[in-house]
This record gives sequence, C-alpha cells and structure tokens, in this order.
Amino acid sequence: MEGKSTKLTTWIGLGVLCVAIVVVAQVARNTDNHTKENLPLNQIKTNTMNNETKQEDTIFPRGDKAPNAVFTGDVYVNMLIPDTDGVYNTQAYNVEFEPGARTFWHSHPGGQLLLVTEGVGYYQEEGKPARRLTKGDVVEIPINVKHWHGAAPDSHFTHIGMSTRVDTGPAEWLGEVTDEEYNAI
Amino acid sequence: MEGKSTKLTTWIGLGVLCVAIVVVAQVARNTDNHTKENLPLNQIKTNTMNNETKQEDTIFPRGDKAPNAVFTGDVYVNMLIPDTDGVYNTQAYNVEFEPGARTFWHSHPGGQLLLVTEGVGYYQEEGKPARRLTKGDVVEIPINVKHWHGAAPDSHFTHIGMSTRVDTGPAEWLGEVTDEEYNAI
Repeated sequence: MEGKSTKLTTWIGLGVLCVAIVVVAQVARNTDNHTKENLPLNQIKTNTMNNETKQEDTIFPRGDKAPNAVFTGDVYVNMLIPDTDGVYNTQAYNVEFEPGARTFWHSHPGGQLLLVTEGVGYYQEEGKPARRLTKGDVVEIPINVKHWHGAAPDSHFTHIGMSTRVDTGPAEWLGEVTDEEYNAI
Repeated sequence: MEGKSTKLTTWIGLGVLCVAIVVVAQVARNTDNHTKENLPLNQIKTNTMNNETKQEDTIFPRGDKAPNAVFTGDVYVNMLIPDTDGVYNTQAYNVEFEPGARTFWHSHPGGQLLLVTEGVGYYQEEGKPARRLTKGDVVEIPINVKHWHGAAPDSHFTHIGMSTRVDTGPAEWLGEVTDEEYNAI
C-alpha cells in the first residue's frame, strides 16, 4: 500500500506537472497572440500614419472649395501667389480636383501654365482631342484659347496653375463641360 | 519513512514542475523574441521601399547639372517653361539641390517665385536671417533684392522656380555664398 501510495503521489505530481505545462504553454501562447494581435494594429497605425502623412504630404494645403459657378464637381483652390500688388504679373495656385471634377470651358487673355503634381487628368482645347495628364506633365495654354482641365473619372488630379500676364485681365468663363463632352474624352 | 518518502516524491514532482515551467516559459519567450527580431526587418524593408518610391516619386525629371559658375555643389535644373517666344513673360523650372548645394548670391530685375516641393532648404536676403524652407512653402522674391537659396547641409531640397517679368532682363549673379556665410545660417 505504501508503494502504491508513493506511486499514486508520483502520478498525481506528474498529472499536476502536465496540467501546469499545458497552462503555462497556454499563457505563453496567449501572450504571443496578444503580441501578434497588437502587431497588425501597430502596422495599421503605421499605415494610417503613412496615409495621414501622405495626406499631409500633398505639397500644398488643399485650400477652399471653388465655386460651382465655374467648376463641375468638387474642386479645391489654394491661391499661393495672389500677386495682389501686381509685382510679378503672375498668379500661382494649387488646384485639386476630385474624380470627375473639372473646370468650365474658359480662356485666359494672358495665357495659363499647368504643372501636374498628382493623379490623372485631362486638358482639352476646343475642337481638339483631350490630352491625358499625369504627374510631371506641363501644359502651355495659349492666349485666348478656349479649353478646360480636370480630373479623370476615376482619379484625383492636382496641378499647380499659373495665370500669366495678369494685367491683360481675368479669365473668361464659357459654360460648363457637359457630361456628354466629358464622357466623350 | 513512508510519509517522508511520499513527501520527497511530492517535492521532486514540484521541483520537476518548476524546471518544466521555466523551460516552457523560456521556449515561449524565444519564440516571442524571434517574432520581435523579424519585425524591425520587415519595417526596415517597408521603409526602404517607401524611400525608393519617394525617389522615383519626384514630380519632375531631374534635368541637367547646372553650371558651377553660379551654383555651389551639385544642382540640377529642368526648364519646364522656357517661354522662348515670350508669350507668358514667365519662365518656370524645377531645381534640385544636393545637400549643401546652393545658388550664388543673385537678384532678378523681374522678381522670382519659389514653390518648395521636397526636402529642407534656406532662402536668405542679404542682411537678413535665413528662412528655413520645407515642402509647401512659398517664397516671393522682390525685384532686384540680393538673395540666395539652396539645400540644408544634411538634406536634399527641391523647388519650382518662376522668373517673372522676364522681359525686364536676366538675373544678375553676385558672387558665391561662401562657406562662412553658409555655415552661419
């Protein structure tokens, strides 16, 4: 009986040992899972931060929503160089177009220059095929040429614009680019 | 003796239990460390990829190395709007400065505008403290004001530049920004 008692105690000890090992392993695994669970969160946070940084990373702040009297869709204009005193005879501004957004048809008595910084968009002169624009493209818009510019249907589009020879007068606005015209590009 | 033997077995069991707990905990910890070691590597890879993307992500192509007659260090100029025919009376260009690179002192009879797109740099008018510039900053350089612009010692720097009222004549170059002047910013 004593031998049995000893064996019983040993088996109980081993049983407790096994239970303890399973419990400890489970706790360790949970700790591990906890780390793993945090991991994607950290990554998401980092990605979010990257995205936020990217949002902030747009070169110029978005500026104010432009009036729908001369724009279709949501367009944001940040006047960088208002040239109020006419020192430079040039205005410069950052323009962000939401997908599908665009200017009305218009022309400039002093011409206009576009430097594309982000996204995909179009520039079209009346009677000509639309020109597809991406980052790094440069557009020289001749004096008094009727045209429009804006985003592709499925992409944001940002350009720096410059109105040159501002002393010749303001842009002339010539009516909206209809959906038919826009969808035909 | 039998009671002692039982107690001895129990104590041995508990001893083995403790050793087992320590071993299992250590194995779990090592697995955890392994995960942690991989983590920074993943992050480094991601960061490197982001940096590579950023490099390719420059808005405008780098252009040609500018002459050291009017620049210190390596500077690359891409003339975006040469305005050869004088239609716009404005030239626009992309300028990339390597760290420490800078223009000579100079002035513009028609003024100049800078739109900072990348990196960290400085703009200084003669007799004034240098202004630190980062992405999104805008500089209006008055007519005939002696100044320089360029990169910080430890950063690349890129801006779009516009020479306005080009018909007033070319920039006047007024000698290099000495290391003493540059190091004093």
